[in-house]
Amino acid sequence: MRTAAEVIKKPWTESPPRRAWTSCIHERIDYIFISNNYWIDDERPCLTYAMRGHIRMVVSVQGPKQNVHAGVDGGAVVEPTIDLCYILGTLVDGAGRVCVPGFYEDVRASSEDDDAAFDRIAFDTTQYRHELGVQRLAQAAERNALRARWAEPTLSITNVQTSNGDQAFSVIPHKATAQVSIRFVPDQKADEIVTVVRHHLEHEFNKRNSGNQLSVEVVQVSQWWRSETSSPYFGAARAATKEVWGCEPLLVCEGGTMHTTCMLVDHFEAPALHLPMGQSSDGAHLPNERIRIQNLVNGQAVVYSFLEHLSKEGTTEEGDEGDRDELVA
Amino acid sequence: MRTAAEVIKKPWTESPPRRAWTSCIHERIDYIFISNNYWIDDERPCLTYAMRGHIRMVVSVQGPKQNVHAGVDGGAVVEPTIDLCYILGTLVDGAGRVCVPGFYEDVRASSEDDDAAFDRIAFDTTQYRHELGVQRLAQAAERNALRARWAEPTLSITNVQTSNGDQAFSVIPHKATAQVSIRFVPDQKADEIVTVVRHHLEHEFNKRNSGNQLSVEVVQVSQWWRSETSSPYFGAARAATKEVWGCEPLLVCEGGTMHTTCMLVDHFEAPALHLPMGQSSDGAHLPNERIRIQNLVNGQAVVYSFLEHLSKEGTTEEGDEGDRDELVA
Repeated sequence: MRTAAEVIKKPWTESPPRRAWTSCIHERIDYIFISNNYWIDDERPCLTYAMRGHIRMVVSVQGPKQNVHAGVDGGAVVEPTIDLCYILGTLVDGAGRVCVPGFYEDVRASSEDDDAAFDRIAFDTTQYRHELGVQRLAQAAERNALRARWAEPTLSITNVQTSNGDQAFSVIPHKATAQVSIRFVPDQKADEIVTVVRHHLEHEFNKRNSGNQLSVEVVQVSQWWRSETSSPYFGAARAATKEVWGCEPLLVCEGGTMHTTCMLVDHFEAPALHLPMGQSSDGAHLPNERIRIQNLVNGQAVVYSFLEHLSKEGTTEEGDEGDRDELVA
Repeated sequence: MRTAAEVIKKPWTESPPRRAWTSCIHERIDYIFISNNYWIDDERPCLTYAMRGHIRMVVSVQGPKQNVHAGVDGGAVVEPTIDLCYILGTLVDGAGRVCVPGFYEDVRASSEDDDAAFDRIAFDTTQYRHELGVQRLAQAAERNALRARWAEPTLSITNVQTSNGDQAFSVIPHKATAQVSIRFVPDQKADEIVTVVRHHLEHEFNKRNSGNQLSVEVVQVSQWWRSETSSPYFGAARAATKEVWGCEPLLVCEGGTMHTTCMLVDHFEAPALHLPMGQSSDGAHLPNERIRIQNLVNGQAVVYSFLEHLSKEGTTEEGDEGDRDELVA
């Protein structure tokens, strides 16, 4: 059973060849520039300045040593699947609020800048509900859907499986497994979240006193990431986007490549910037994935302009570690 | 959404060719003799005189119109999977007791004959636990495991699935589905059980007020079956088994071909008998399924002897509908 800290502390740079390579370029990295995100709609250019962290956990309950027959043994066996459903059902209430004691501790209060950025986006919850096809959003989200999606932690059950592979109605599965995906935010710590979630699951499981075995395993942890929007790098990206697209970019907190971003930031001790280049409807990773030619051409122009702005301003970033005079983009 | 009654009332004999065939042989069926079961261990010959009924239900909760991204929409969406786990977790407690109000109504009290038959089997719960590989059995079963398995109703969750087919930790499934398998006993009625289970699920689901959609569907119903052990047919089977194997058969309440048995009993209005012929370790439906030659040879001898005993006694069965003078085995 691994803790979140153990999962985090297995660096990608452990192997000797990688160590040699990274040590030789380490000193020359001032800034990490990633363009692998999308706008939040098809119209408005964006800059990503934060992403929630991600904890992947696997929770399983094991009972008999193999599947048993529901008609023969049903009633005599306390079923692992029902134990698992019970404990999973205690995690989140019907309004989307995570019911694990201590889960929301350390969540950083919304700043005025964040509120202003969220307000500027003028997010339409009615349209969002329509796009999702749901009758209602989680309670908190109705008032402030963006805050719920970007600045609040959340807990999802992304899959449940049993050992009854043939889906026979006459089989009691001897094991049931769930995937739990937790998104966490500044200033939450992965290890503390794992501890409270694990404790809650064990507490609820022990209430049942079923004699089955619970296992809670951390599979992967990606830290939350947040860049300083007041840095000269971020300023150069804002100015360049405005220059090319003719409007201020929206400052958003959604995007991908999160695990890699945190790993690079951590390893090179350099800040990062995400420049979303495509439209929300580009169909990322789906069939017929595309990018509009205008976005590609203007995207290149934003990168040129970003470098120009930086060279005019000088590149030493206040508040970041080290004094670096070069930019490796 | 079908009710249990609708599911039961779709007879196999509906098609015109089957109707013609069954009407021509209908009058000639006195008794239904089935040999498709196994002993409850490898040593002691058995006769099956009852089997629990079986209700197969599918319960699902649907939310957004398609899967959504846990990192992008997590926190704003109330998840169908958590709704489903919650309601499933309310069905059975940690001691295996079904928590649905009204579920145990109409369960026939154990008769002295049943108790005597169960006692005679001298069922070893320690060995049973060891075979299953569980720390403990359901509470009721510790006192009377056979009654829990044969004469008490039970509710199993035989599978849970989500619409996240790739099992990605970044996907919130838009739909989650569970299979519920209910075993029921004399004198419970399938329709009433379905009604109380459906009502309970709806009640628990409505508590969450999540805006998602619940669906409860009955897939198949097989009635419980119980034969009269005092009938001349059953008496002939007991005598024949004793004659061939040299010991009284154990009277047991487990076996297969339940749906077919009930269908035949219902359609031909004739009683049925199950003669288990193989040993419990024969590996039914598994690779290297087998039957011991001695069981095959003695099994044939039991059938011959059974017919002989019937011909000596006369074959009119007391307590069954109709006066039949012929036996079609």
